[in-house]
Amino acid sequence: MAGKPFLLSVKALIHDGYGRYLVIRRSQISKNNAGRWDFPGGKIDAGESFDAALVREVAEETGLSVTLEKVLGACESDLPDRKVAYLFMRARVDSGEVQLSEEHDAVAWMTPDELAEADICPQFRQFVRPLGGAS
Amino acid sequence: MAGKPFLLSVKALIHDGYGRYLVIRRSQISKNNAGRWDFPGGKIDAGESFDAALVREVAEETGLSVTLEKVLGACESDLPDRKVAYLFMRARVDSGEVQLSEEHDAVAWMTPDELAEADICPQFRQFVRPLGGAS
Repeated sequence: MAGKPFLLSVKALIHDGYGRYLVIRRSQISKNNAGRWDFPGGKIDAGESFDAALVREVAEETGLSVTLEKVLGACESDLPDRKVAYLFMRARVDSGEVQLSEEHDAVAWMTPDELAEADICPQFRQFVRPLGGAS
Repeated sequence: MAGKPFLLSVKALIHDGYGRYLVIRRSQISKNNAGRWDFPGGKIDAGESFDAALVREVAEETGLSVTLEKVLGACESDLPDRKVAYLFMRARVDSGEVQLSEEHDAVAWMTPDELAEADICPQFRQFVRPLGGAS
């Protein structure tokens, strides 16, 4: 196959039942997009299913136990040596209180309008813009 | 994690450079959606990356060698015992002539308008409807 390799990253839009979604801010130690808002999630480990990977990443990054509810959409990021495909899943909280890892330093619950205005990681802007009608 | 498990299926929208996409018709031996139009693709084998899986499935189902170009979107299917998340990638043909496996018995190139009218697998209708503006 020619072209750059594609990696897959799964992301959770965790809702609060009132139309707001959880975002976490990338801490200053982040290699990319330090200080920008991000969604919990990440890459799939070898041999791991995508849903188990996302539930694990959410637990590691936020301390929350979640259930994945539905597919919300997808977007991509084009980097010099690779592309990343992002698959977004809506999720609800089953238990836990938000507790961040050292990768993130702030947490907020935002409406779709607030997400569209926030300083989020640029590769997600194309996804959050139409989000008002997606849930 | 509560709720049904989610499986991930990757699908290719292979374009012909003139705004048409390749669809293949599920043969009568298909357990589900026999006689309906489908996109090449399928599930990821254990330990396989999603892009390698999609290139492999396309080769097995169509005989074509393709390069994945970009993420087009995602949708889902809700079955009694599980849900399936579909990630759609646009792809271009590098080489090969279409040669179907026994899973499919017809091939067509369709515009987004034709896709919206065709008897495609029902879980893809929500995805192909807005496709005219997605490529």
